[in-house]
Amino acid sequence: MKKTLAAIALASAMMAFGLPAQAAEPIDPIEPVEVKNPALVELGKMLFFEPRLSRSGFISCNSCHNLATGGVDNLVTSIGDRWAQGPINSPTVLNSFGQIAQFWDGRAKTLAEQAAGPIANPLEMASTHEMAVKVISSIPGYGEYFKKAFGDSKVDIQRITDAMAEFERTLVTPNARFDKWLKGDKDALTAQELKGYNLFKSSGCTICHNGAQVGGQSFQKMGLVRPYQTTNTAEGVKAVSGRDQDRMSFKTPMLRNVELTYPYFHDGAVWTLEEAVAIMGDVQLGRRYMKEELADISAFLKTLTGDQPKIEYPVLPPSGPETPKFNPWAPAAK
Amino acid sequence: MKKTLAAIALASAMMAFGLPAQAAEPIDPIEPVEVKNPALVELGKMLFFEPRLSRSGFISCNSCHNLATGGVDNLVTSIGDRWAQGPINSPTVLNSFGQIAQFWDGRAKTLAEQAAGPIANPLEMASTHEMAVKVISSIPGYGEYFKKAFGDSKVDIQRITDAMAEFERTLVTPNARFDKWLKGDKDALTAQELKGYNLFKSSGCTICHNGAQVGGQSFQKMGLVRPYQTTNTAEGVKAVSGRDQDRMSFKTPMLRNVELTYPYFHDGAVWTLEEAVAIMGDVQLGRRYMKEELADISAFLKTLTGDQPKIEYPVLPPSGPETPKFNPWAPAAK
Repeated sequence: MKKTLAAIALASAMMAFGLPAQAAEPIDPIEPVEVKNPALVELGKMLFFEPRLSRSGFISCNSCHNLATGGVDNLVTSIGDRWAQGPINSPTVLNSFGQIAQFWDGRAKTLAEQAAGPIANPLEMASTHEMAVKVISSIPGYGEYFKKAFGDSKVDIQRITDAMAEFERTLVTPNARFDKWLKGDKDALTAQELKGYNLFKSSGCTICHNGAQVGGQSFQKMGLVRPYQTTNTAEGVKAVSGRDQDRMSFKTPMLRNVELTYPYFHDGAVWTLEEAVAIMGDVQLGRRYMKEELADISAFLKTLTGDQPKIEYPVLPPSGPETPKFNPWAPAAK
Repeated sequence: MKKTLAAIALASAMMAFGLPAQAAEPIDPIEPVEVKNPALVELGKMLFFEPRLSRSGFISCNSCHNLATGGVDNLVTSIGDRWAQGPINSPTVLNSFGQIAQFWDGRAKTLAEQAAGPIANPLEMASTHEMAVKVISSIPGYGEYFKKAFGDSKVDIQRITDAMAEFERTLVTPNARFDKWLKGDKDALTAQELKGYNLFKSSGCTICHNGAQVGGQSFQKMGLVRPYQTTNTAEGVKAVSGRDQDRMSFKTPMLRNVELTYPYFHDGAVWTLEEAVAIMGDVQLGRRYMKEELADISAFLKTLTGDQPKIEYPVLPPSGPETPKFNPWAPAAK
């Protein structure tokens, strides 16, 4: 309570000295990206919604990174091929380009590298890169789109994932109420939301949750000051580095649109913002927030919901005579 | 071959007498419907894409009636809850409102009645109408959409399915090349396509495949002159009427966008138009088409692909505190 008041006093003092609010803020507004190659974005959108990139012909990127629901599936972990239970919660694709790396354990440096993963993961789309290329090459209608995007109609996995990445780069959610406030609209936040933001800052959340993405810029141990209890077996960065000290180290999630991206954490174990904030306070900061404080911070977090991307649902070209006939129930390959 | 020439001669004679081509044609152009209640259509679109209407929180109407791919899933039969294999091929939702009835066996009179089916079918979305109403009612953001559409925010299964039906009514695909030809643009079809159309008419296909939907207006025995071989166990209209003579009687499929709606027939057993036309000729008309004739009719059928609906992908409101936490892998209820 004291800290909150102190933060408000500080903010008031800054305003009194005529300092613009945004100059001192650890969070930046997020802005739409400039589209340099609209044909590449259009192709990427088609491929993002393309179920034929999966073994079954049923699962697309959008199945688990659903643009109707904050770029996630709102499930604890995702449903994959043959109803497989994924190992980890699907992070949102919204605003994802600006992160330090991709995946919870950061094992992909770029969006294109990330996009290649689920296509070939047996628990996700369960295809292979060879099959993905074969399928897309076999669909006559894609030729003109590759040509427009790349200059010729050659299909390879790099082009497929580059196109997806270019589309994903456009999935930015500007104009959140918090961004309006950052830009000087003092009425954009309620008193409670502002109180929540000040507490968010003063208690140290912005050490990790900062920048335009409000996170996604560093790896942190989940359970910094107190162990985080979970039945999920993901090892975090250790799976990439092999180093034992990286166990339970995960990329700090972005908090933009966090209102939409429940359930929370890498294990998807928590469904409400209040509970997520309480656990973060406890295991990362060693702080037990009061109920009112949890409500205040949660109210602030909901001001990070921005304009969702306007997507014209793509029309995909029909399969050709050489396209495989998908059979979701085919016996598993050995 | 003789019949084809006769049909062309007849058509030529008609043109010579100055009769407009369309006056004599058994197929009518399809036209967009007038939207009377845009708010109802918008709500219906949201619900059509709403995965929370399923038990798992993963499957929406659009999963199997994918508007990116001709309103179907391009699978033999559909994937349902827990990767269940559906009993029958998913018919397209495009242009579906103008049919005599819904489902292959016609068991639903209206689109709204149809929409209620998959929600509660254990092999499809596997929810219940009670659960669907509970879920939608629990999502705070839906209130304003129901209010705009219906005057107040009450949610019931009739309203849910009425809204879906109203959206589906707008899924019309006008401006097919064949429609342009019907409307007098003689250059809209190639010589081969026109030859295919004339053969389609002269050999009797238009007895069933006629009107604006090019089908969907009657029930016919699959295997009228020769038994149709299938491993699919669907009984057709018999399952509705109980009468043995209705076994293997199915609603004649619409042929609009048939280029996109493979695989074909109620059992989804056939992947190419040529093969589908050959089988239809054989089992319905007792006619063995030559290879060239199959190519001609198939070329004509591809002129029935119209403008696909332009859909702005919906943004769905987030779950509320009372919304069930979906668990796709929950033990099955007894």
